Amino acid sequence: MNKKKIVNDPVYGFVSIPSGFLFELINHPYFQRLRYIKQVSMTHLVYPGALHTRFQHAIGAMHLMSSALGVLKDKGIVITAQEEEAALAAILLHDIGHGPFSHSLEHTIIEGVSHELISSLLMDRLNTEFSGKLDLAIAIFTNRYERGFFHQLVSGQLDTDRMDYLNRDSFYTGVSEGVISYDRLIAMLNVVDNQLVVEEKGIYSIEKFLTARRLMYWQVYLHKTVVGAEQILIKILERAKYLTGQGQQLFATPALAHFLQYKVGCHNFTDDASHLDWFTRLDDMDIMSGIKAWVYAEDPLLSMLCERLLKRDLYHSEISYEALSPEAIKSVQIRVKDYFDIEDVDLPYYVFSLKIQNSAYNRLKDPIQILMKNGEVKDLISALNVSDLGVLEQKVTKYGISYPKEIGFFRF
Amino acid sequence: MNKKKIVNDPVYGFVSIPSGFLFELINHPYFQRLRYIKQVSMTHLVYPGALHTRFQHAIGAMHLMSSALGVLKDKGIVITAQEEEAALAAILLHDIGHGPFSHSLEHTIIEGVSHELISSLLMDRLNTEFSGKLDLAIAIFTNRYERGFFHQLVSGQLDTDRMDYLNRDSFYTGVSEGVISYDRLIAMLNVVDNQLVVEEKGIYSIEKFLTARRLMYWQVYLHKTVVGAEQILIKILERAKYLTGQGQQLFATPALAHFLQYKVGCHNFTDDASHLDWFTRLDDMDIMSGIKAWVYAEDPLLSMLCERLLKRDLYHSEISYEALSPEAIKSVQIRVKDYFDIEDVDLPYYVFSLKIQNSAYNRLKDPIQILMKNGEVKDLISALNVSDLGVLEQKVTKYGISYPKEIGFFRF
Amino acid sequence: MNKKKIVNDPVYGFVSIPSGFLFELINHPYFQRLRYIKQVSMTHLVYPGALHTRFQHAIGAMHLMSSALGVLKDKGIVITAQEEEAALAAILLHDIGHGPFSHSLEHTIIEGVSHELISSLLMDRLNTEFSGKLDLAIAIFTNRYERGFFHQLVSGQLDTDRMDYLNRDSFYTGVSEGVISYDRLIAMLNVVDNQLVVEEKGIYSIEKFLTARRLMYWQVYLHKTVVGAEQILIKILERAKYLTGQGQQLFATPALAHFLQYKVGCHNFTDDASHLDWFTRLDDMDIMSGIKAWVYAEDPLLSMLCERLLKRDLYHSEISYEALSPEAIKSVQIRVKDYFDIEDVDLPYYVFSLKIQNSAYNRLKDPIQILMKNGEVKDLISALNVSDLGVLEQKVTKYGISYPKEIGFFRF
Amino acid sequence: MNKKKIVNDPVYGFVSIPSGFLFELINHPYFQRLRYIKQVSMTHLVYPGALHTRFQHAIGAMHLMSSALGVLKDKGIVITAQEEEAALAAILLHDIGHGPFSHSLEHTIIEGVSHELISSLLMDRLNTEFSGKLDLAIAIFTNRYERGFFHQLVSGQLDTDRMDYLNRDSFYTGVSEGVISYDRLIAMLNVVDNQLVVEEKGIYSIEKFLTARRLMYWQVYLHKTVVGAEQILIKILERAKYLTGQGQQLFATPALAHFLQYKVGCHNFTDDASHLDWFTRLDDMDIMSGIKAWVYAEDPLLSMLCERLLKRDLYHSEISYEALSPEAIKSVQIRVKDYFDIEDVDLPYYVFSLKIQNSAYNRLKDPIQILMKNGEVKDLISALNVSDLGVLEQKVTKYGISYPKEIGFFRF
Repeated sequence: MNKKKIVNDPVYGFVSIPSGFLFELINHPYFQRLRYIKQVSMTHLVYPGALHTRFQHAIGAMHLMSSALGVLKDKGIVITAQEEEAALAAILLHDIGHGPFSHSLEHTIIEGVSHELISSLLMDRLNTEFSGKLDLAIAIFTNRYERGFFHQLVSGQLDTDRMDYLNRDSFYTGVSEGVISYDRLIAMLNVVDNQLVVEEKGIYSIEKFLTARRLMYWQVYLHKTVVGAEQILIKILERAKYLTGQGQQLFATPALAHFLQYKVGCHNFTDDASHLDWFTRLDDMDIMSGIKAWVYAEDPLLSMLCERLLKRDLYHSEISYEALSPEAIKSVQIRVKDYFDIEDVDLPYYVFSLKIQNSAYNRLKDPIQILMKNGEVKDLISALNVSDLGVLEQKVTKYGISYPKEIGFFRF
Repeated sequence: MNKKKIVNDPVYGFVSIPSGFLFELINHPYFQRLRYIKQVSMTHLVYPGALHTRFQHAIGAMHLMSSALGVLKDKGIVITAQEEEAALAAILLHDIGHGPFSHSLEHTIIEGVSHELISSLLMDRLNTEFSGKLDLAIAIFTNRYERGFFHQLVSGQLDTDRMDYLNRDSFYTGVSEGVISYDRLIAMLNVVDNQLVVEEKGIYSIEKFLTARRLMYWQVYLHKTVVGAEQILIKILERAKYLTGQGQQLFATPALAHFLQYKVGCHNFTDDASHLDWFTRLDDMDIMSGIKAWVYAEDPLLSMLCERLLKRDLYHSEISYEALSPEAIKSVQIRVKDYFDIEDVDLPYYVFSLKIQNSAYNRLKDPIQILMKNGEVKDLISALNVSDLGVLEQKVTKYGISYPKEIGFFRF
Repeated sequence: MNKKKIVNDPVYGFVSIPSGFLFELINHPYFQRLRYIKQVSMTHLVYPGALHTRFQHAIGAMHLMSSALGVLKDKGIVITAQEEEAALAAILLHDIGHGPFSHSLEHTIIEGVSHELISSLLMDRLNTEFSGKLDLAIAIFTNRYERGFFHQLVSGQLDTDRMDYLNRDSFYTGVSEGVISYDRLIAMLNVVDNQLVVEEKGIYSIEKFLTARRLMYWQVYLHKTVVGAEQILIKILERAKYLTGQGQQLFATPALAHFLQYKVGCHNFTDDASHLDWFTRLDDMDIMSGIKAWVYAEDPLLSMLCERLLKRDLYHSEISYEALSPEAIKSVQIRVKDYFDIEDVDLPYYVFSLKIQNSAYNRLKDPIQILMKNGEVKDLISALNVSDLGVLEQKVTKYGISYPKEIGFFRF
Repeated sequence: MNKKKIVNDPVYGFVSIPSGFLFELINHPYFQRLRYIKQVSMTHLVYPGALHTRFQHAIGAMHLMSSALGVLKDKGIVITAQEEEAALAAILLHDIGHGPFSHSLEHTIIEGVSHELISSLLMDRLNTEFSGKLDLAIAIFTNRYERGFFHQLVSGQLDTDRMDYLNRDSFYTGVSEGVISYDRLIAMLNVVDNQLVVEEKGIYSIEKFLTARRLMYWQVYLHKTVVGAEQILIKILERAKYLTGQGQQLFATPALAHFLQYKVGCHNFTDDASHLDWFTRLDDMDIMSGIKAWVYAEDPLLSMLCERLLKRDLYHSEISYEALSPEAIKSVQIRVKDYFDIEDVDLPYYVFSLKIQNSAYNRLKDPIQILMKNGEVKDLISALNVSDLGVLEQKVTKYGISYPKEIGFFRF
């Protein structure tokens, strides 16, 4: 049968799966696993709608890639069917290596191994399974293909990954201000010398896109309560690993048990393929079912943290543009010790500092190139005829401290 | 503090929590548990966006209740502050008794106990905990309050439960045709003799609402693949209970282990309060973490079912307006036995029939009352000056059969 | 230049003009004239947003036609480039013959000549101008092309004209319930034996579409105040023509003056090509600038009607399922005569009856054909396994009477 | 009757008219006239959907004012019923003095008289008519009321006028990127010392609002084709006035005829009340019906300009960051003279320069004040902890030249 498979996506409507091979990739257990990994971790504790997954995101990004390639072909850029399928496969699989709760636990479950590395390893496995059909997709993903714009569409300032996640995260959080006009941005894409450029008349749309991204960072991704909840999640896992190391027997699903027992990290991860096997069995539910059981764990610290997370009885966080002085932190710690009657060694589970940083645009690292009406290509800042983009370029750093509400509020 | 708590809801935007008491209810662990119970069970296997939860639904329904009461007060219906809070609490808690995967496992985990009964029991517990503050809410919920329109807004043909779930399920599935104009419907509500009525000029909106509901039933709730996936879920649980009964040790979270071991049903559920305690610790994640582990169970049947569900390698379902003949079913069974080399006793896990029924409107059970411009109250059908509503009133029955794709497709 | 022209449409986003020829048609003065003819006449007096024009509608319908043909081609229906352009031209020009205020004045300015006839005449002129390039488009428009589905997409139960106007009128009136899921409907289209069919799984979407159409009829197109305002518009024109016939000199734009002076109708319209020339110079603004000036006309009747329309001081209308008795009408007339001290001859300008009729679906005239999963084609009613569609099939008739508010309200 | 009047607005849904007095103002002919004045002049020639009117805008802004006052009252700011109605009346009437095509013809029909002055004069007339009921509204409008935040909500950096027009213009043009989250912005408003402030957590929403405004300026309001079309409109009126001054008899509606014959300007406008009377009879349709007739005027220049506007055969415009040199302009003029064989005196109708300027935020003129979490009030820039807002603060100037396409394109 000739009919295309179609997915209903609340964000874009009907999304078609452009080829049988891509449909097979989607049906692979590695990809189906993404159904159970939330895109934005514990954000749903602040924005209850934000339960969407890496699965939906990957398919959405593929949809935008398909539109972008369509626009480029309409403008006369030659793109072969093989290149098109490879670019679609690359974006489909770009997050395949994400573990439970995406970024939050990236360096907790397996220390020092990035999700990009794991994505690469899994793509290699899939490539073997599919007899080399992913060669070009992998070359694009790892930026080894000479036509650089394909990689830029997978990973760059204006890639289809970002376009999808801004859209999708806005949609599901209800922070509608983060919505970007992806259709307009995509309509303005072009290619010059194999590099991605944006046509001049799209210049204000880019400003809007960068502002939307900045807004989403501070309003959602780096929202103090979200960051605080993710810290508690990390501390729970650290505590569980510590207790297991001490010989305590904690309830855990088989896959989670593996990572509690073995200290898997960059030193030994690739030595033994079984670690990667176990990793592919791990998702958000392993962590959460552990946490639910550990509410009743003997260790009071672990139990306390798990109970707080489940009841959404989160810590209070305070944020400012300057780091707190050691004295200020000390005063919080003293209050906590007093109130909860705990030892110094447990303090890091009760009081912790946050440092959050973001900049919306980095002119040096990956400048956005504008195709002027007269055919010239200029970077965004020159094209706007300005010396800088102000807040959009600035690296903003904020500092925070989190502690249990019970001790009352501090004002620094 | 005077400031109202606000929740960001992708469906309605800002939703405010009208009172401190309601905020306390939301923060209660019983209510927080609903964060982990999906509104529409396994529907996300067909509509990947449909991951929304009973938590969001309950808050959304409360928001609509608040609008509806506002409209009624604007029209001169006297509603006291106490009644308002009670109605809001009643709708907030109306689904508190739902277990994992909502309706799908309603009679599998605990046999013969409806979620409404469990909701009542949990409301009673909460009422005790909050020293009787829920008395009126419970009276409204159980339809023992003399001003019947409050109950009708919680549970009736045009209740805020339905309005929210149609909206919300449409939003998250992407089946935008199910979206109803809740604001218009609510604006048309009125009360005559303590009964809910709809003003005449809202009559076409009601037709549209009923049509939307009919559409959502067939397109989403009773979608053959969704129903098929839910059947597999049920069979997995049944098999796990059976194997546990046979003395096999299956991996399970503590809460799930309780319900695998003890046959809890209507005969013994209320005898021992601990069953309800354990129930409040149970959510979707308990089930899913079991299923993930059981992929590797010794029992080939259990393993096969779990693997299929996780890989989304679902059964094929065929649907028609007539029941299949015993011969037709037999022919499928024979093919399955051949192909998989199984015993008769295992057949029900491989081949099963579905009977799905729905009618959009029942004129007898709960007629929608229309307030005519001249002050008269008529039922919907008379108000439309017709003898019947055609397909909207008809009880539609469809029959289906599900079996593994591997055996090929049948045409009956 | 290779780049496609793009139009920003608030309803569909970016709409591209598929070919240079279509772009030329759009730029033709006959088509540009549609910029100044409102799609839904005086509806903006009730729904202030409804100022959209035939120009936007025609482009929107062309966009939907383009999607529909794309879907059909994806399903393997062979459609040549020439057929595609012809179908797009046909839908683009289908309303080219509309005069000021679309349907409202259709039989007032030129008596007894339908806009379809004028459309045909103008298409013929354009065809001459474009050297026969519209031959096939005209054949499709007039249903003389053997592949009937093209005509059905221009004019049929599920044509792109209807899909666009329901969408667009809902969008601009704010009656969001009229919005249809055109993308879903279009995705379900197919062709069997050159006839348009809808695939079985689209069956509930059709129900929804018919219900939406029924709702828009009663809530917008046949809204009593809208109908009343359009009647006043008609009476103004009739009075102006009458007074001109009596030799009075009324202010008028040159194009309007032509039609006030000459009684153009079906008997003489085609005799003299200059009538059609003048017609192409006529739009809403000619009528409105006349009305604005006639507020100060000597004739008190004309002045009164124009003033009421401009100040939106409209008549009161009463609607019911039964026709008013002659006695009831008489009693209103008597009150009016008393109150305004007028003669019998002027009564029709003060009191008038309305008869409004609509049915959403006519199974005989133009049945919707469903392509069942087993390949059979059935009409909608059989496919739904029912005997009738209830209210959707019923021919509903309502009767009304309109009169100045000053005389007080009647209750019949 | 107790029921509130409701308007269907496609942008906000149901809008209620809060009081009988406001309803009377809306029904006044001065206000009804706004139904026939497009909000964004000739923009519909570029964005065909942009046909919305000052009427809709004024009601929308009133709706936002009502929400804003609701939010402030919820936060404990005391606002009397009288103040509320006055603020609503002030925003409702803020544009009452706009003439045909809003800003485009502001200084052409009546030279040197701003629409604000005319608004004031009309408010005074209405105040007399309504026996002083508008005293406070006028004080708020003219910033003579001591509680300054009311005026700021009518006219300031974050007023409800701007919020509505950005929203509405985005909605109707289809430039969805201009949509602002007015609900979020409004939810963040507060009042300190009778001055409007925005709460700190709304700071990124303000950035987004300013970026949206900048985008709408360059993408819509100052779009080169829009500006070019408005220039042609102005030149048409100037020519018509000139020709009338020369004694030529041009077709004109009575109201337009008045302003063609009498040179009404700031020197004599207020001397004779009849000028204002005639002004209240003038709207877009007077201008357009003139232009339609003047296509056939004897004067070839006037005829040419009118024909181009109606056929949308607009001039070509070129835009750059630097002013064109006199030589460059000269070269265009020479080509035009050659091509069209015209005299120097007519050149300004064929070739004209544009200078367009905009800055999104002016820190000195009207700084946005932020209410920090610690209670301090800071201006936006300090609150963001930056030295400037980059492009948002910059005064951007662009220069353009427009000329007929027939002479070919220049590259400077």
